[in-house]
Formats: sequence, structure tokens, C-alpha cells
Amino acid sequence: MAKSEDTRQTLDALFHPRSIALIGATNNLGKWGGIIMANAIGNGFKGKLFPVNSRDEQIMGIRAYRKVTEIPDPVDLACIVTPAETVPALVLDCARKQIRTVLVISSNFAETGPEGQKRQDALLSVARDAGVRLVGPNSMGIFSSTRSLVLLMALVEPLKGDISFVSQSGNIGGQMLEWGKRLKAGFRHFVSSGNEADLSCRDYVEYFGRDDRCRAVMIYLESLKHPGGWMETAREVARRKPVVVFKGGKTEAGQKAARSHSGALAGVVPIFDASFRQAGLIQARTTEAFIDCARSLSRLPLPSGNRVGIITRGGGWGVVTTDACEEMGLEVPALQPKTLEALDRILPPYWSRGNPVDLVAATDIRIYLDCMEILMKDPSVDGVIALSALPGRVMSFLSRPALKERLGLDDARVRAYEASAEKAGREVLEGIVHLMRTLGKPVVLVGMYPTSGAFETLIEKEGLNLYPTPERAVRVMARLMEYGRYRRRLEAREAAWI
Amino acid sequence: MAKSEDTRQTLDALFHPRSIALIGATNNLGKWGGIIMANAIGNGFKGKLFPVNSRDEQIMGIRAYRKVTEIPDPVDLACIVTPAETVPALVLDCARKQIRTVLVISSNFAETGPEGQKRQDALLSVARDAGVRLVGPNSMGIFSSTRSLVLLMALVEPLKGDISFVSQSGNIGGQMLEWGKRLKAGFRHFVSSGNEADLSCRDYVEYFGRDDRCRAVMIYLESLKHPGGWMETAREVARRKPVVVFKGGKTEAGQKAARSHSGALAGVVPIFDASFRQAGLIQARTTEAFIDCARSLSRLPLPSGNRVGIITRGGGWGVVTTDACEEMGLEVPALQPKTLEALDRILPPYWSRGNPVDLVAATDIRIYLDCMEILMKDPSVDGVIALSALPGRVMSFLSRPALKERLGLDDARVRAYEASAEKAGREVLEGIVHLMRTLGKPVVLVGMYPTSGAFETLIEKEGLNLYPTPERAVRVMARLMEYGRYRRRLEAREAAWI
Repeated sequence: MAKSEDTRQTLDALFHPRSIALIGATNNLGKWGGIIMANAIGNGFKGKLFPVNSRDEQIMGIRAYRKVTEIPDPVDLACIVTPAETVPALVLDCARKQIRTVLVISSNFAETGPEGQKRQDALLSVARDAGVRLVGPNSMGIFSSTRSLVLLMALVEPLKGDISFVSQSGNIGGQMLEWGKRLKAGFRHFVSSGNEADLSCRDYVEYFGRDDRCRAVMIYLESLKHPGGWMETAREVARRKPVVVFKGGKTEAGQKAARSHSGALAGVVPIFDASFRQAGLIQARTTEAFIDCARSLSRLPLPSGNRVGIITRGGGWGVVTTDACEEMGLEVPALQPKTLEALDRILPPYWSRGNPVDLVAATDIRIYLDCMEILMKDPSVDGVIALSALPGRVMSFLSRPALKERLGLDDARVRAYEASAEKAGREVLEGIVHLMRTLGKPVVLVGMYPTSGAFETLIEKEGLNLYPTPERAVRVMARLMEYGRYRRRLEAREAAWI
Repeated sequence: MAKSEDTRQTLDALFHPRSIALIGATNNLGKWGGIIMANAIGNGFKGKLFPVNSRDEQIMGIRAYRKVTEIPDPVDLACIVTPAETVPALVLDCARKQIRTVLVISSNFAETGPEGQKRQDALLSVARDAGVRLVGPNSMGIFSSTRSLVLLMALVEPLKGDISFVSQSGNIGGQMLEWGKRLKAGFRHFVSSGNEADLSCRDYVEYFGRDDRCRAVMIYLESLKHPGGWMETAREVARRKPVVVFKGGKTEAGQKAARSHSGALAGVVPIFDASFRQAGLIQARTTEAFIDCARSLSRLPLPSGNRVGIITRGGGWGVVTTDACEEMGLEVPALQPKTLEALDRILPPYWSRGNPVDLVAATDIRIYLDCMEILMKDPSVDGVIALSALPGRVMSFLSRPALKERLGLDDARVRAYEASAEKAGREVLEGIVHLMRTLGKPVVLVGMYPTSGAFETLIEKEGLNLYPTPERAVRVMARLMEYGRYRRRLEAREAAWI
């Protein structure tokens, strides 16, 4: 079997297992074997789970086995959570049971120094001889949306979606899954690659690249063992789908910290920067941008230029957004005369008559959407940043008891107010989704996170991007425009060859 | 009366009024006069409110007057919310009633063009002749914590605190008050300065400078009419308390947007940058940093150098935080041998033995606090960034119905788990507050925002700073260090003169 074919089968078993042996499972929630087990059960794994444990007959109500070889059914994936020195023998057990994919959570290998490196080398050698492929060791685990599988040390319930993510730090990975839940960024697959004794970051990226259901790839990267081959793979994937990379150990001090953390050399920064750019990877500069960009790139249409239209209800916000666009290399172009004329017909005579389009104090939802449509149809505009699209919390304020009485509002009236605010918000969001689809231009929203569940559902389902600050929205737009430019260059190059 | 004395009295009346005439008050919540009235009532203004309206006898259950001159009691402050053309005559009414401070919410003055400028000039001339001082016109209003007074177009309930804030954009101001509530940043006074026909940004800053209860000043600035005098004032205030400024219109495109918004020339950017620095002002580069920095500077001890100790439970987060420190010019120094020895006695043998202090998987709260104390006592460390100090949400996860049953947990057990997690979190936070006080070094926390009300209260009351991303924490630490440096330079200069 070719190595790449073997790797593909290994990763199919890792991300789509029908059955899992959890070696080191325990009822003790103070131990990782207990937490991972609870995590798998609590998130509703769609498959069979076989706890393996030398003492207990049942773990969390599920029949346990003393050894994997005693499990009567076939097993696709084993996960080991026992002390480092026990792992090699357990890997041999897995081989006997025909389990060829083993996720090693156990730590105390290469990350702890020369002794640990020796243990890891020995483990790898055992695995290779036995024909077993390893994830980790020192991995925090994996998530698979297709199997509702959370085999992780972090107690998270990731949102399901189409981002696939490999992280060389378990903690960063766990946090991103948690943030994703809050920010409506859904994941398809996640793997904490640990020490990468066998399977490496490159293998996971290649797998994500071939997975048609994966629409964006996230990589948290500290170090590379084979940078050349890795970069080729990443470049190949980035031709087809956005690849967002966050580099840990960007500075000398950060590299030193990374060395003491993973034992690996973090690499030379300027070389990374340049090669990321050449390969068409989107480099996120902050952890927040990391997930913001992956989410937007997985969901929004790509703009065909770097010209931003801004729509706002308040002058100051227009100024701040314009500054941020300019600082990040985006253009805030003058609008076409036809656009101004169309807006003149809707807005009061003293409107700003330019970009940003300041709606002044217009509160009517219809006006917002109409102006939005006119702005998005302007051929000078490649994407729109829409501020204050969602209605405020006027009505929740008015329902405060002291005020309700003074204003003579009854509950029915307050509920009616609330319902109308929610209806207005829904209309705006649905209108924006429709405009994005029909015109093929991205819209990034700025506003407070909505408290209404209805808005949250719309935002998640329709892939709308909403950020609390204009700077975050502009940064996301800048990355969309960067990747759009890369794809256009690729297409032009390909066209030139025909 | 000297002009500065007159201004002081005017602003005393603005921020501490015992009685207010709201001219243009209405029962109609679709109008600004209704929203501002509801806002004042709903937030519990500690004083008398006199609605003035030509039609209704009662507004929201309060007796209304047709003219301010008909109000029998003395009135400290008038607020006008009527169309522009009616304002001059109303100002004359105020003068007759001995009201010398008038807040003009009404718009359609200089911000709308030459016609509006004429209206504004005429209004100012009327006010000057009558001995009335104006806030605005085109102001969004004010907030005063001492009077529980929200006289604003934005429906907000700002958190009370010790930050005083003047904004040349009403929308930015309203949003900051709203963000402050979420981020536990409390305000003492806020004013949206509007078109600054009479009272200007400089007057407000000077007033805040003399107010001993104000511990930090925020300024959103788009343009200055008298930059020279303004800068002197700001410099004088910054010698005594932190002044955080956000400049709108930093770029050419942003300046253009600012012109069309406020009609004023935004000024030459490099000159602003240099003079802000010379005057000891802290310039925030993003809207988020604006409020983050003001909050931290108003509450945390100033570090005496730029060396950061980092404590973390996860290697990757240590790497990212170190990178961010390095990128923002902060040092992540080697720890002293005594510190390493003390940590050796607590942590397992394979701990990172350096800065960042990676606690590996130690989950014991006592260990976290002990390591924290050792790190803070290191003379090479001027301030600490503490990651993952708060306990995770393990227990809320375990209380999910499906899992609770499987694990055989009863409600009492789940509640006991939750209580113990909360107790642990409280111990960490209280311990950190104690260390900050006794050692005089700032600690900035990184973690998910807590969902427990007990933590939120502690964070608000004790002035702890908690951020969801390491980059935000590092940025705040960088600003604390910048202002600390400025204050040390000042003190050294003063000492040299003795």
C-alpha cells in the first residue's frame, strides 16, 4: 500500500470511527481517563465505545474489558490515556486486535526532555514494527462532527460546521473550539497533533484538503520537521480552499518558550512569513483573528477587489471604520453618481453624500435595507461593512418595572414591542443574506452580540459574520480580500496556460 | 468672574444638577424627547425633573410646564430636544429663569453645512449675550454617576465608576458606556461634546483633571479648534492621572469621513501622535483598547519597569503571550535562581523551569496561587500576566442530564461540585487581589469571561482586569508600563529640581 493511501485510511479511522477502545478509561472524574470518557458519552458519540481498564467491570454504565484483545467486536480506533511507560505494550495489544490507528493522549514523552525523547523513539519503533499509526503522543485528542465524537481532555461541546483544524498546542486547540461555540464558528474535524512522532501536521492538512465537506483549514503551528514538503502540501490545499495559519513562536522570546514547551525548534520567522504568503496561506496575527478569519473565509463570498463600502448610523463609527480600512490597506472608494442619486431619493437632504454612507438617525429597517442594496450594487464596491444593522435594546429597557409603570405599559404591549424589534432584526439579517447570495459580495456586520436566540440561530445558520468592534470586521474583510486576490492570481495564471 | 471659574460652575451644574428642565419632553417614545425622558426616569435620577412641553400637562406621570419660566423651583440645568430653529428663543427663556447651563441635544447645526453653521453662530451669539453656557449643540447628552443621571439619546445603564469621558462622537460614546457595562468599566461622568459651539473638549478635560474622584480620563477626539491650549491642559491632567485618547480620523480617508460628519478639519496626524506622546497621553489604537486601557489604568498599580512574568497552564498559550509581549516591546525576563528554586519545590520535576511559568496540568488552586506569589516576588518581574486562573466549567458540563444519569450524580452532588469550583475561583481572585495590594505590582488575567455572578462582582469591585485573549492582556500591560515610565520620568525630573 502506498504511504499516502495508508495515511488516508488511518485518518478515516481517526475521524470517522464506528467503534473506539478507550484504554485507561475510569469512573474517576479526577483523572483524564474519566474526563475523556465523560466527554465522549456526554456529547453523544454515534458509535460503540469500549472502555478498557484492568480493574472495573463497568465504566459509567458501559461494560469494560481488561484488554483490547478481549473486545469481541471490530475496533477502528484506540485511544490510550495511561502512563507513558505502559504505552508500547498497549500498542502491541492494539496491533493484535487489528487496530491500526492509535491516539496517544499519554504525555511524558519528547516534550519533557532527552529521557522522554528516548521513550518516544522506542514507542515509534514498536508502532512501526507492528504496523500501527500513531496520533501524538501528548495529544489533547480529537473532535469529529460526523461521529459527534469529542475524544478530548478539554470539556467542550464544539459547534459542528465545516472548518477542519490541526493544532500543535492542545490548549490553543481547546480554547478555539470553545471560542467557536461562542462566535458561531463550527468545526468539522479537530486534532491536537501532540509531539507528532508519526502522523504530522502535514498529514492532517493533506487529509483536510481532500475532504470536500471541509471548507476552511486552520493550523496552529509551532515547528515543522520537514518544512519543504509541508509547504508544498499547504500550497496545494490553499489553491482549493482557504488555509488560515497562526504561527506560535514568532519572536525570539516566543521561540524560546516554544522550545521549552514542545522541545522543537520553532524555525526562522522571516522564512515562514514569506513562504506562507507565497503558498497563499492566510496568516492570522492574533488568536482572535485566527478564528474570525477561518469562520468568515469558510462562509462568505470572496470579494473581487479591495474596495469597501461602509454603511453606518453614526458618524464616529464611520470615521473609525474608515481609518481601520485605510490602515489595513483597504480602499474606501468614492461612490458612483448613480449610487448617490439613488440614496438621495431615500435619505434626508443633509445625509453625508459619500462613503461611509451615514444614515444619520434613520431608524426604519426598510431604509437600512434599501440603502444596503444600493450600496452593494455600486460597481465601485467589492464588499460592505455594515454597522448597527441590528435594532438596539430599546424595548428590553422599557420593560424595566419602574419605567413600565410610569409609561403605563402593560405586559402585552411590552411583548408586542419586543416582537416587533425581533421581527425587524430578522428582516434585516434575512435581507442581507439574500443580497450577499444574489450579488456575490461579502457583508461583514458590526454590532453588539445579539441576545435574542432567533438572531443567533440566523447568524449561525446563514453564515453571517457579526463582530462587536469595527476593527475586527475590517480585519476579516482584509483577509477575505487577500485570499480573493490570491485566487484571482491563480486563475489568471491558469488561464494564461490554456 | 474669571472665565475658568465660570466654566467650573457651569460644569458643576452640568454634572451635579439638583434639578433639570427637559425642554421638548414628550410621552411619545418614538421621539428623542420621549427616549431621553424615559432614560432619566428609568435610571433613577436623584433630583427634580421638570418636563417642558407646549401641549401635555403630564409627561410620564410628571407635571409638565409650558415654559421653563413657569417652573416654580430653581433649575440648575436645561436640556433642549426641540428643532434647531426653536433653540435660540428657548435659550433666552432659560436665561430669564436664571438657568446658566444648557445642554443642546437638537441637531441640524454646523454638522449639516454652511446653513447650519449660520444657525449655530446665531445661537452662540444669543447665548453669549444672555450669559448662558452651551453644551453641544448636536450633543448626544451626558451621564453623571453622582446624580444617577442618564440624559442621553442612547438607552444605556452605565456602570458607575471613576472614569470620566468626553467624546466628540455621540455614537462612540454611547457604545463605550455599553461596552463598559459588559467589561466592568465604570464611569463617573460622560459628555458627548457635540459641535462644541461654546464649551469644548478642553473645558471638560480640565474639569475632569480637577475632580479628585475621577481616576482616569477618556477622550474620543476628531478635531481641535485650539490645539495648543488643549495640549497644555491635557498635559497638565496627565501629570496627575492617566489620560487615554482615541483619535478618530487618523488616516486621510478617515479625516475625509470626519469632515463630512462633524464639518471640522481633523488635523495633521503625525503632529497629533508626537504631541500626545510628549504630553504623556496614552493613545489607544483600537476602540477595544480604548476602554480596556482606561479601565486598567484607573484600577491597577503602575509597574515600575517593562518586565513581564507569565504564568500559564498550557504551553501554547505561554508561547502566544510571550510573542505578544515581545511584539509590543515588553520583556519576558529570565527568572532569578531563587525563584526557580522556590518553584522547583512546588512543581513536578518536568516543569518548564523558566518564564513563562508553565504549571503543566496542575489543577490545584493552592499551587496556582503559591506559584503566583513566588513569581510576583521575583525582583526581575514588574507585572504578571496570569492565564487560566479561573477554574473551567467542568461541573456545569457534568450536570448535563444525559451524563448526570450515567455518572450516577444526584443534584446535591452536582451542586457541591459547582460550589467547590466557585469557591476555588473566588480564592484565586481574592488571593491575586491581596498580592497586587501588598506587592504593588499589576496582574492582568486571561480567561473566558466567567458566567458566575460571584466572579463578576469580584472582578468589578476589586478592579481585576480579565480579558478573553492574551493579546488584549498584553496590550493593557504595555499601556500600564508606558504610563508608569512617563510618571517615573516626571518624578525624576522634579527630583532634579529640588
